[in-house]
Amino acid sequence: MTNQDILDRLAAVVESRKPANGGDPEKSYVARLLHKGPDAFLKKIGEEATETVMAAKDVDHGGDKTKLVGEVADLWFHSMIALAHYGLTPADVVNELARREGLSGLEEKAMRKVKERERLGD
Amino acid sequence: MTNQDILDRLAAVVESRKPANGGDPEKSYVARLLHKGPDAFLKKIGEEATETVMAAKDVDHGGDKTKLVGEVADLWFHSMIALAHYGLTPADVVNELARREGLSGLEEKAMRKVKERERLGD
Amino acid sequence: MTNQDILDRLAAVVESRKPANGGDPEKSYVARLLHKGPDAFLKKIGEEATETVMAAKDVDHGGDKTKLVGEVADLWFHSMIALAHYGLTPADVVNELARREGLSGLEEKAMRKVKERERLGD
Amino acid sequence: MTNQDILDRLAAVVESRKPANGGDPEKSYVARLLHKGPDAFLKKIGEEATETVMAAKDVDHGGDKTKLVGEVADLWFHSMIALAHYGLTPADVVNELARREGLSGLEEKAMRKVKERERLGD
Repeated sequence: MTNQDILDRLAAVVESRKPANGGDPEKSYVARLLHKGPDAFLKKIGEEATETVMAAKDVDHGGDKTKLVGEVADLWFHSMIALAHYGLTPADVVNELARREGLSGLEEKAMRKVKERERLGD
Repeated sequence: MTNQDILDRLAAVVESRKPANGGDPEKSYVARLLHKGPDAFLKKIGEEATETVMAAKDVDHGGDKTKLVGEVADLWFHSMIALAHYGLTPADVVNELARREGLSGLEEKAMRKVKERERLGD
Repeated sequence: MTNQDILDRLAAVVESRKPANGGDPEKSYVARLLHKGPDAFLKKIGEEATETVMAAKDVDHGGDKTKLVGEVADLWFHSMIALAHYGLTPADVVNELARREGLSGLEEKAMRKVKERERLGD
Repeated sequence: MTNQDILDRLAAVVESRKPANGGDPEKSYVARLLHKGPDAFLKKIGEEATETVMAAKDVDHGGDKTKLVGEVADLWFHSMIALAHYGLTPADVVNELARREGLSGLEEKAMRKVKERERLGD
């Protein structure tokens, strides 16, 4: 299976956890977050981003790389819950990444941002 | 795009931007972040997570979903730069997500965390 | 001067940087952020929180404490810019902290949150 | 509240919650965070920063300002727990803010950063 296959499958599971699709907040962690609404899972994105940063800093000082993998997995997974809530999929995100590509494209976009930032003085 | 997975291909491009692989900080945004070191790209993870949250809140109030897709793309992309720096790949993350799966598995893990949190009182 | 005196004075300076009060985005960093609007300074709060966390992790590994002080200062300062935009002041925040106090009060509130989280299973 | 500065008083309470000062993780929220160690309270800083951003976005759309005050209070309070852990105080932060002042000074520093960023192309 490709990465995309796995992400698609996960997205289907998240989709099935939506309240409208019968997801049960008492049995499913994902259903509960979706049931609570945006602030619940958006807050987790901020939290998991912070945990990713902390795990990375720990790797800098000899810590365990598998923890970092787990934190990025948590970060991406909670992103996928948010995507599902808004009717979006990981494929939308990956296609956006591809669209910006050769990566030249992606870097061009980033470079444009940098230049704009320079122009605006920030 | 047909034959190779997009995330793998992006990861290969990021890999090629490492200073050790000849990435040029003057020409490539990714090479520059990798050249600057962890704090530069880890900070971006925190920043892009915040921008994801803001874009999602805007969608809640009628904003544009494509902006949200773009912010999640930025978040995942900067995660991939961090992964590359630490010798990891998006496949490691996706495989970790698959490993936790049936999603049952993934939710079990989240539920275990919740229970542990309850036990510890946080 | 007490902390509060200093925070009040800083708040007055931030207030004077509002576009409506003649703050000039070309000359003043604060005026520029206020001129750009909420996303600009809210993003900085996420960014400075991440930098605070990174600086703290560095102290854990022998890094410089003055850097941590500087990052918390940046975090609080950008919070003050946001407060000003919304017609609020650091005194509002400090009074809220006092209100929750004995600290008993503050901890009660946190404990209530913890209990509620336990009840909801998150 | 009249005679002693509120932040100093809060800092003294936090200090008394340190394990070394007899803080009891079973009774006190602050003692528990300090007992758990840096990752526990640093993660809260990322979380409260995200909640601050979300509350601010809600105010943009007609939401309640007192919620924003509460989130900034949470953010500053958890910063104070981190400061205490590292042997620092809110007065260190406030004095750093004062030091950068006239605010001219503070803005000069921010402007220097902007210029340096421009020079480095980020």
